[in-house]
Amino acid sequence: MKKNILYAQSGGVTPVINATACGVIETARQNKEKIGNVYAGKDGIIGILREELIDTSRENKTAIAGLKHTPGGAFGSCRYKLKGIEENRREYERLIEVFRAHDIGYFLYNGGGDSSDTAYKVSQIGKKMGFSVQCIGVPKTIDNDLPVTDNCPGFGSVAKYIAVSIQEASLDVESMASSSTKVFVLEVMGRHAGWIAAAAGLAGTEEGDPPHIILFPEVPFKQREFLKKVKYAVENYGYCTIAVSEGVRDTKGKFLADAGTRDAFGHAQLGGVAPVVANLVREKLGYKYHWAVSDYLQRSARHVASGTDVEQAYAVGEAAVNLALEGKSGVMPIIRRVSNNPYRWEIGETSLARVANREKMLPKSYISADGFGITPAARRYLSPLIQGEDYPPYGPDGLPKYVRMKKILASKKLPAFEV
Amino acid sequence: MKKNILYAQSGGVTPVINATACGVIETARQNKEKIGNVYAGKDGIIGILREELIDTSRENKTAIAGLKHTPGGAFGSCRYKLKGIEENRREYERLIEVFRAHDIGYFLYNGGGDSSDTAYKVSQIGKKMGFSVQCIGVPKTIDNDLPVTDNCPGFGSVAKYIAVSIQEASLDVESMASSSTKVFVLEVMGRHAGWIAAAAGLAGTEEGDPPHIILFPEVPFKQREFLKKVKYAVENYGYCTIAVSEGVRDTKGKFLADAGTRDAFGHAQLGGVAPVVANLVREKLGYKYHWAVSDYLQRSARHVASGTDVEQAYAVGEAAVNLALEGKSGVMPIIRRVSNNPYRWEIGETSLARVANREKMLPKSYISADGFGITPAARRYLSPLIQGEDYPPYGPDGLPKYVRMKKILASKKLPAFEV
Repeated sequence: MKKNILYAQSGGVTPVINATACGVIETARQNKEKIGNVYAGKDGIIGILREELIDTSRENKTAIAGLKHTPGGAFGSCRYKLKGIEENRREYERLIEVFRAHDIGYFLYNGGGDSSDTAYKVSQIGKKMGFSVQCIGVPKTIDNDLPVTDNCPGFGSVAKYIAVSIQEASLDVESMASSSTKVFVLEVMGRHAGWIAAAAGLAGTEEGDPPHIILFPEVPFKQREFLKKVKYAVENYGYCTIAVSEGVRDTKGKFLADAGTRDAFGHAQLGGVAPVVANLVREKLGYKYHWAVSDYLQRSARHVASGTDVEQAYAVGEAAVNLALEGKSGVMPIIRRVSNNPYRWEIGETSLARVANREKMLPKSYISADGFGITPAARRYLSPLIQGEDYPPYGPDGLPKYVRMKKILASKKLPAFEV
Repeated sequence: MKKNILYAQSGGVTPVINATACGVIETARQNKEKIGNVYAGKDGIIGILREELIDTSRENKTAIAGLKHTPGGAFGSCRYKLKGIEENRREYERLIEVFRAHDIGYFLYNGGGDSSDTAYKVSQIGKKMGFSVQCIGVPKTIDNDLPVTDNCPGFGSVAKYIAVSIQEASLDVESMASSSTKVFVLEVMGRHAGWIAAAAGLAGTEEGDPPHIILFPEVPFKQREFLKKVKYAVENYGYCTIAVSEGVRDTKGKFLADAGTRDAFGHAQLGGVAPVVANLVREKLGYKYHWAVSDYLQRSARHVASGTDVEQAYAVGEAAVNLALEGKSGVMPIIRRVSNNPYRWEIGETSLARVANREKMLPKSYISADGFGITPAARRYLSPLIQGEDYPPYGPDGLPKYVRMKKILASKKLPAFEV
């Protein structure tokens, strides 16, 4: 009997997570003789617990194809981490009940480290409960912090947005610097790992090129050295462009800008380090500044996505279905780098146990000796990930033609469940 | 005897001001039998006072063509307003001396209202000093606040960036809203006129579409009505997206976010109203929020420029040279709208005296009755300005191939001058 796929998006969305969904659904539709329907959890795993399963067979071919160029999470996502099985057996059992009720043979969970952990646990509990479900993790995170895989779908597009944006803003600042703004600060995401901050460094290739300073979460913020470098840039290049990670900490380990709030995972909710850094420059050096906080813009800017990233995001979705068809469980498709120049990659696989709850930090060898820039090694790694352009189609109104799902739910078969 | 053109960029730069420079230089080069060289003031009018004239004949054809797709101000710009002639005769006389020394027959000043005023005054003083120079204003401002012309080159691209960005970020917020961020605030530029804020409204066409709230500088901020509307959006659409102009003021006329600093024109330097608004939402309604400040990113984002805007920016540069060749002075080429649908426009002209020091405010009829949105009339006006895409070429490294000028200065012929 043909089993159905249950696909769910998890955690912060990316400009290309829907390209992965597109890869999953289109590949499943090409294998109708082996796979039944594809359901998608409404708002991620919360929707699965509530038995809110979006019936993707109700979405037409054009809409599904349009997912490839639509940012956000088209089926909804959530930040909701299942606790350990012993603490929260009720939720794991509910998942299995929902799977059973809807003939789910394949659970494809599209997320980061926490999601790999969940998918891994679900595969374990299924075995214990005597219900066979193949659990496949599908990599996604703008933070690029998953281990084993060479890079994470989602990151390349954010990296491209940041590199292009700081290149452009630097041209602006440079134009005006002789009589106006001399320092520009762009805040970028990346809570613990400075991958996105590092991507800003791709904008400059020669001595004096912006960004002149990158502030990494990996490097404790040293005010004196920082100010010295700002002054040097302004005096020698006329202006100074700075990319600062939201996760920058002082030498005591405290975030420079900690709003004091926590998300569902207990992580600090950050934001607003750019004005902190800009004000410091003004106070200590007296330079006129501007600052920008790109926040959600960076992780939804499908209009300037990386062609490489879109292709890889689709490929991991496709590969996840193929792994399912091969009978695999507890695994995740990964991206393997074959060569740097020309850039070549292929899809591989790893076990979820190897991925779960491990963060891949930016290697020390990617940060320059003074702690304020990237090395040639970093450039060799990062550059291919932003290569290629893949524009969304635009309407006559001048806006991208992003698609929306109808989100028609499958009929419920189980009693309600409190999440 | 053939006279030279002196071109200068003034005030805040735009994603397409260099397209205007391209139009000026290419058109002059096509008229070599009538026009000598094109010089460009280094860093705008300050460079002219210092006799720092960039010799554009030293830039090759490819570099000049590349200006059409390069953001920032390739020759440099400045915020430097000449005072009245009586107060500051010394500077006006210096300009004329520089013109005389370099055989300048045409002064093309590419800027906003202040620049039109300067160009107008220079045309007056030239006459009084018995030196004949034709002064042509060339319109540019992201704020779209010049009178007479239907719109200003620069605005359309910023409008497109903002509309696309809020559309994309809204898809992101919507994905996560059921369990995470419910309110997203995007701060946009526009000190006194809400043109850019209004452009955010283009992203939504149907009831419930984002942005749900626009805060205009023209509408005094009323906290109670605002919070009511946020609550309504969250309860009815699941989330709330807000575009807020940096120039929003409270009912007493005070900017919600006044950093307390002033620029060279005595204008308040603004920034940071987004976190103010976001914190208010959290405090009063308890919703989780995110906020972004696009700042310079919006006015340098050539990667998502409006095709219409690029075309018009080039056309006003071309037209300025043609007006010069027709013997005109004290005039500015303008954009005249011929029809809305299909959008058709043509180049016209007006006198600088009609443009100088007048701001075109957003008509009241463009703001919806409740003060938080745009009307169909606004949409009819704004929509054509963001139509069409005009991407810069990208290199194999995945970054736009923006050009840089060599900025070789013409030999100085005059004594130094203190600016």
